[in-house]
Amino acid sequence: MDKTISLNARILAAASVVGSKEAAGPLGKCFDFIDDTDRFGAKTWESAEAEMQRMAFNTALAKAKCSEDRVGALFAGDLLNQCTGSAYGLLSFDIPYFGLYGACSTCAESLLLASVMVSTGIYERCGAVTSSHYCSAERQFRTPLEYGSQRTPTAQWTVTGSGAFLVTDAREKAVGRSAVITRAMPGKAAEKGINDANNMGAAMAPAAEDTLVRFFRVTGERPENYDLIVTGDLGYEGGEILSDLMRFQGYPMGERYTDCGKLIFYRKKQDVHGGGSGCGCSAVVLASHLIPKLESGELSRILFLSTGAMMSPDSIKQGESIPAVAHLLEFEGRE
Amino acid sequence: MDKTISLNARILAAASVVGSKEAAGPLGKCFDFIDDTDRFGAKTWESAEAEMQRMAFNTALAKAKCSEDRVGALFAGDLLNQCTGSAYGLLSFDIPYFGLYGACSTCAESLLLASVMVSTGIYERCGAVTSSHYCSAERQFRTPLEYGSQRTPTAQWTVTGSGAFLVTDAREKAVGRSAVITRAMPGKAAEKGINDANNMGAAMAPAAEDTLVRFFRVTGERPENYDLIVTGDLGYEGGEILSDLMRFQGYPMGERYTDCGKLIFYRKKQDVHGGGSGCGCSAVVLASHLIPKLESGELSRILFLSTGAMMSPDSIKQGESIPAVAHLLEFEGRE
Repeated sequence: MDKTISLNARILAAASVVGSKEAAGPLGKCFDFIDDTDRFGAKTWESAEAEMQRMAFNTALAKAKCSEDRVGALFAGDLLNQCTGSAYGLLSFDIPYFGLYGACSTCAESLLLASVMVSTGIYERCGAVTSSHYCSAERQFRTPLEYGSQRTPTAQWTVTGSGAFLVTDAREKAVGRSAVITRAMPGKAAEKGINDANNMGAAMAPAAEDTLVRFFRVTGERPENYDLIVTGDLGYEGGEILSDLMRFQGYPMGERYTDCGKLIFYRKKQDVHGGGSGCGCSAVVLASHLIPKLESGELSRILFLSTGAMMSPDSIKQGESIPAVAHLLEFEGRE
Repeated sequence: MDKTISLNARILAAASVVGSKEAAGPLGKCFDFIDDTDRFGAKTWESAEAEMQRMAFNTALAKAKCSEDRVGALFAGDLLNQCTGSAYGLLSFDIPYFGLYGACSTCAESLLLASVMVSTGIYERCGAVTSSHYCSAERQFRTPLEYGSQRTPTAQWTVTGSGAFLVTDAREKAVGRSAVITRAMPGKAAEKGINDANNMGAAMAPAAEDTLVRFFRVTGERPENYDLIVTGDLGYEGGEILSDLMRFQGYPMGERYTDCGKLIFYRKKQDVHGGGSGCGCSAVVLASHLIPKLESGELSRILFLSTGAMMSPDSIKQGESIPAVAHLLEFEGRE
């Protein structure tokens, strides 16, 4: 029984905090805060990631001129073991906390659940925060940076960044045009036999296909009804696979399809191989690039999917394949 | 702005799957499935944990005579890095998947979000599944079992078990008396300076206190209005601290307070020191012991809190304190 979730959640504010490599990329001028050292004043990479979450959510609160006691709940997650980026990063906020783990799908997962809370009137406002950090991710998932390992051509580059969003019931009066989350299609966990942790795009593309096809079938929508269809972090390899899969399914997406992992870095100049990835990838691209375009009128209607590869370093060593999931959100720009 | 969430979610079915030590405890006869080898037919402890989740949710579906296409979404989590117990364990179900991480608070967190979904009519039915495994937890959080490390007096014993729940809109007609989730108070992340990973009860007790006090203040309820107030896995040490804290706050709980970590093992005979812990602890005690008592009429009204300590082995080594969270659910037995 596939069904979409009807939502009516306005993005009250979105904020992005990134590191040096992201600042040097095509969206460099769009981010709210940049630390060229990638350290954010912290002694460890893990604390730096937590600090990015704190800064991103604080910035979102400030942009909305919203005090924390008006925020009903926080939905947050990251890639670190036991999601410590979120647990430590958001500890200073006196707000109920829901920890999530959807790997790189967490941005859409957190926005989906926050939107459910405000659309059903349970809370007036909710926050959604996610992050990833290249240095904490590399030493946890692959090898410590000091080893200087070579990267395979399909390997993706984990984005150092955190995106934070404040959503509110869209019936709350807006000042000017804003981005509204109107529908969602939650993803199902899928696994198609890929067990190469350096090719996560290939592992995640079938999950994105499954969610997109279910959304188009249930709603009767077509790719051409949207200005843009953008996935979280399939990158170049996974993005190409998804394009092919959707064409075979009878939903060719053509030029209106892109991926946050392609948008965030210059492919050749920045030597990122497969493109950007990580929970922070789709979060900071949504916050700094897509939502502003929905607000300005440059985009009217988009589909946004975050895609997550939910393996662990141990599960890969134990010979398991990579389970993936993709959650879809439909955004509209509205006066 | 503290507020409770009003819910109306009936427990359609609850199932529990445990290992040998749990089977030898006081609730041994109440569990649905026991594997005396703790291996559940799997080659690794991590796969064994995943298999417990699959079995537990399958058993819940069978008890409710419910096909998986009637289940709108699954909310699941566990303690393993990247929550692979849930991602791999529930992969075979063709149901939208929301991954959660709230450490040992995940049982209440998953039930809370599943209850929101059915109480607001977004889905007709939802599943909530959590697990922990002594052998996978020890080698991940402390030391491999083969080392034969000595345990400190306050150390808790991670429960090998998985609990699964199927919830439905309580307006759906029930056959006989059942357990209904009527209200929830989500927890805030709190940290009070404890950084001893062998004394998690002490780290989690202030989080439970905070949630309980906020619930009593907002609702005007008192401990004496409940047959039982039961926390997830504070164990003996944390449970005593919570009792003291609540007395100081003017809400003495007396004999009506207990903890799932005390209920699941014989303290001395089973050499468990601080009591049981882990996501599976509160999940299997709720599924096998508390819900049947609500259904039989032995209990009418209880408060159930799962408590989570959200540190990672790395964050402890880096000198950080332990952030904790406790989510509260109010249950009533109803015809």
